[in-house]
Amino acid sequence: MGLQLYNQSVGLFTDLYQLSMSYGYWKAGLEHKEAVFQLFFRRAPFQGGFTITAGLEAAINFIENFHFDSSDLSYLASLENPEGTPAFPNDFLEYLSNMKFSCHLDAIPEGTIVFPYEPLLRIQGPLIQCQILESPLLNLINFPTLIATKAARVRVAAQSDQVLEFGLRRAQGFDGSLTASRAAYIGGCNATSNVLAGKLFGIPVKGTHSHSWVMVFDDELESFKTLAQTMPANSLFLVDTYDSVEGVKKAIQVGQWLKSQGKIFHGIRLDSGDLAYLSHTSRKMLDEAGFPQAVIVASNELDETQISELKYQKAPIGVWGVGTKLVTSHDCPALDGVYKLSALRDPEGPWKYKLKLSEQMIKISNPGILQVRRFRNTSSSPIADMIYDINMPVSPEPCLINLNDSTEQIVLKKELQSEELLVPIFRQGKCVYPLPNLEKIRERTLKELEKFPKNSKLLKHPCPYLVGMEKSLHAYKSQVVNHIRPQICPSSFFTKKGMKEE
Amino acid sequence: MGLQLYNQSVGLFTDLYQLSMSYGYWKAGLEHKEAVFQLFFRRAPFQGGFTITAGLEAAINFIENFHFDSSDLSYLASLENPEGTPAFPNDFLEYLSNMKFSCHLDAIPEGTIVFPYEPLLRIQGPLIQCQILESPLLNLINFPTLIATKAARVRVAAQSDQVLEFGLRRAQGFDGSLTASRAAYIGGCNATSNVLAGKLFGIPVKGTHSHSWVMVFDDELESFKTLAQTMPANSLFLVDTYDSVEGVKKAIQVGQWLKSQGKIFHGIRLDSGDLAYLSHTSRKMLDEAGFPQAVIVASNELDETQISELKYQKAPIGVWGVGTKLVTSHDCPALDGVYKLSALRDPEGPWKYKLKLSEQMIKISNPGILQVRRFRNTSSSPIADMIYDINMPVSPEPCLINLNDSTEQIVLKKELQSEELLVPIFRQGKCVYPLPNLEKIRERTLKELEKFPKNSKLLKHPCPYLVGMEKSLHAYKSQVVNHIRPQICPSSFFTKKGMKEE
Repeated sequence: MGLQLYNQSVGLFTDLYQLSMSYGYWKAGLEHKEAVFQLFFRRAPFQGGFTITAGLEAAINFIENFHFDSSDLSYLASLENPEGTPAFPNDFLEYLSNMKFSCHLDAIPEGTIVFPYEPLLRIQGPLIQCQILESPLLNLINFPTLIATKAARVRVAAQSDQVLEFGLRRAQGFDGSLTASRAAYIGGCNATSNVLAGKLFGIPVKGTHSHSWVMVFDDELESFKTLAQTMPANSLFLVDTYDSVEGVKKAIQVGQWLKSQGKIFHGIRLDSGDLAYLSHTSRKMLDEAGFPQAVIVASNELDETQISELKYQKAPIGVWGVGTKLVTSHDCPALDGVYKLSALRDPEGPWKYKLKLSEQMIKISNPGILQVRRFRNTSSSPIADMIYDINMPVSPEPCLINLNDSTEQIVLKKELQSEELLVPIFRQGKCVYPLPNLEKIRERTLKELEKFPKNSKLLKHPCPYLVGMEKSLHAYKSQVVNHIRPQICPSSFFTKKGMKEE
Repeated sequence: MGLQLYNQSVGLFTDLYQLSMSYGYWKAGLEHKEAVFQLFFRRAPFQGGFTITAGLEAAINFIENFHFDSSDLSYLASLENPEGTPAFPNDFLEYLSNMKFSCHLDAIPEGTIVFPYEPLLRIQGPLIQCQILESPLLNLINFPTLIATKAARVRVAAQSDQVLEFGLRRAQGFDGSLTASRAAYIGGCNATSNVLAGKLFGIPVKGTHSHSWVMVFDDELESFKTLAQTMPANSLFLVDTYDSVEGVKKAIQVGQWLKSQGKIFHGIRLDSGDLAYLSHTSRKMLDEAGFPQAVIVASNELDETQISELKYQKAPIGVWGVGTKLVTSHDCPALDGVYKLSALRDPEGPWKYKLKLSEQMIKISNPGILQVRRFRNTSSSPIADMIYDINMPVSPEPCLINLNDSTEQIVLKKELQSEELLVPIFRQGKCVYPLPNLEKIRERTLKELEKFPKNSKLLKHPCPYLVGMEKSLHAYKSQVVNHIRPQICPSSFFTKKGMKEE
């Protein structure tokens, strides 16, 4: 996001070891190998029942701009090994300077509900290109996916109310805030306070006024009056600079003046205190004063948990301003996305499938070249996802092994509608994907959320949605794991103390 | 950070309400007012005993690039009120297009230890300019300060060991990662894996290799051998792709080959499991094999807490790779920095001091034009900070009211050395501050940390460092609070249910 704004080569936006390994591959004569890497996460953030994928557009922009310019090459030429020799010899730098992205990339479109172990991106192409792209692709997908998911949870909590994203001031840097604003909109926010995000992405911008407006004047009433006179369209008063209930009284006074002028009193914003009590009290005051249409906006460290609790208390709040806790994803500040090699071959040769072993089941990666098929019932609600290998035959009535319970096998009827989630994005380095606009992406999220089973949308203790591995892929993986494990870890499981975690 | 990379106007990088309020001030004829705003935080992150300020260079870059270009103005002209009238009339846009930053700015240099309520930045100038800059200044200071502080805590935990920042893949977007790398270096990291951060900021870059290197080969031993052959300088082997102890055995085999070639076996990296057990086991294996100099690098969701615990278990780890938990500041993902109006006047007129009231003591802002004086003992260790108003006379033996305990008054002897923490950055819109280079900033942090009292550096339950308000400022603030409170909140404290929180 915002990468198109940089007037600087982005080739070096990667971890050093990606370049070191690339050099090693090149030196060892492995640069012609064709690899498949898959980007996936292992745990749904927030212990939630769904995740919304985002960031693909930024990843596409990145790849399209991916090259090493002369300043990148000079910088790499300046790096030295501890003993003073160059870290990267000139002929390798020459190789990098001629490198042109030529991979296939398949991905799940932004705004799709996704689950652990589903490949969000699958890249196939020259080993070195795939390797270098690991770090930027993770960076560009992990964070927006996290924020879109958080925003979707806020959307679920707020039901049909307006949700405004106010996070700029606490966001993680300049681009962190732009990325967060875009992802929050994808997840279902209605608007952002970030004007640059509005300009760049066409997100609606909204805002009220701050405490400093009130403090500039000698008293609160004067500040509200001046606001009403200078910007009647903005007559939504922040009432808590000194005392919320007193503030509401003054807002009502000014509202009456607005009414006398034939103008609309839009409402009030509560930004502190017991929002349930204050919103009920304010609502009563507003209604009694003849302003039933005046809206109550609430803000102050809100997220889906606070909003749900306020909804439970029937707080008459119509608009929710969410900031810090959304844009920093406060209760889960990172998605654990990883990017793993899953297949390798000599060009046109047979594939060797690869997996990373671990003594923790959750950390074993999936071998193969994977696709996800989503099955839907007659009302188009998703009922199951199947992860399968594109080179293994799938029965017309496929059998899934439930990823949450490997003893459970489910056979899917052939009448079910289904679709493949990963779609072609690049073919041999050429983008073949028509980028949907942001509105369409957001609509996709909202439509998916609407169709998604209610019990899996619960914010706490959701019922797990069925994600399974196609039976032959599962059998293959088990076989590989059992084949490698005794060879590699002769003493594992029963005698070792050091449990592996990655 | 990284703002200089944007080839795009940054004028709209602010919250919409800053522009709405600015329009209101302008419309109400208040644009000539001169304001003072101060940026400070109210709680030290991580419940820690110190905070390291960072982000000033980015703030300076931002201000120097701050203007509205024609695309910004066209965008603002396109915004409408709900009733379809323009949100910003043309004459106001004209005013914006002619606006030129003309404020004074004072700030505490990056790499300084700071405390709650100390102004990190103080801006003085035309009300509208100060108002619009609220959001970007908070964005540009909050996040780096948070990350520099987290890194400094990691530095304290790691003692004199090397700390490498590996966070790119989980960082909050493109610029989020660059900002985090720079701030982490300021806080005391030794290097980053982010090559672009290395290129742009001159931070040393470091890295080893990943699991995919191992997986590309048919077995682990072959992968280590190839690494040793192609990049002997990088002979630091990641041993946990299949089984850490088995991996160490293979690393040692390859180490012996390296030795036979007269080359150095640099060490191993542990990336999972019980790092205490595995590091002790590996150390023993390496030592017995004749490689006492081979280093053990550890990674895997590390932060200051894990590092302290491993240190307590005397884990023989020499280098710490920290990623996600550092760059997302995982256990405290936001600094609660705020930016408050503290004084206002007609140009050259008398100042009116301003404060924001709250029923919670912690949320009442400080009025005035504030400076911080740091007092040191004869070994140059800081012993107390005094927040004072530059327009109120301070006695040569000033009396402080402890901010943590307002019953405590401390008189500081006049023999103490002292310095003013805020230094001039801009004067009438012109930058007068020679930007220190990044190495100097980092040295400042390390020197400050070294001199800082040990018991206040404790990662848990630190002894509070003395920060006090100069007595006459404290008396003035109390008087103002007591003057406003009964007027504004006649019913507050004893009868109201809605406790104010902001």
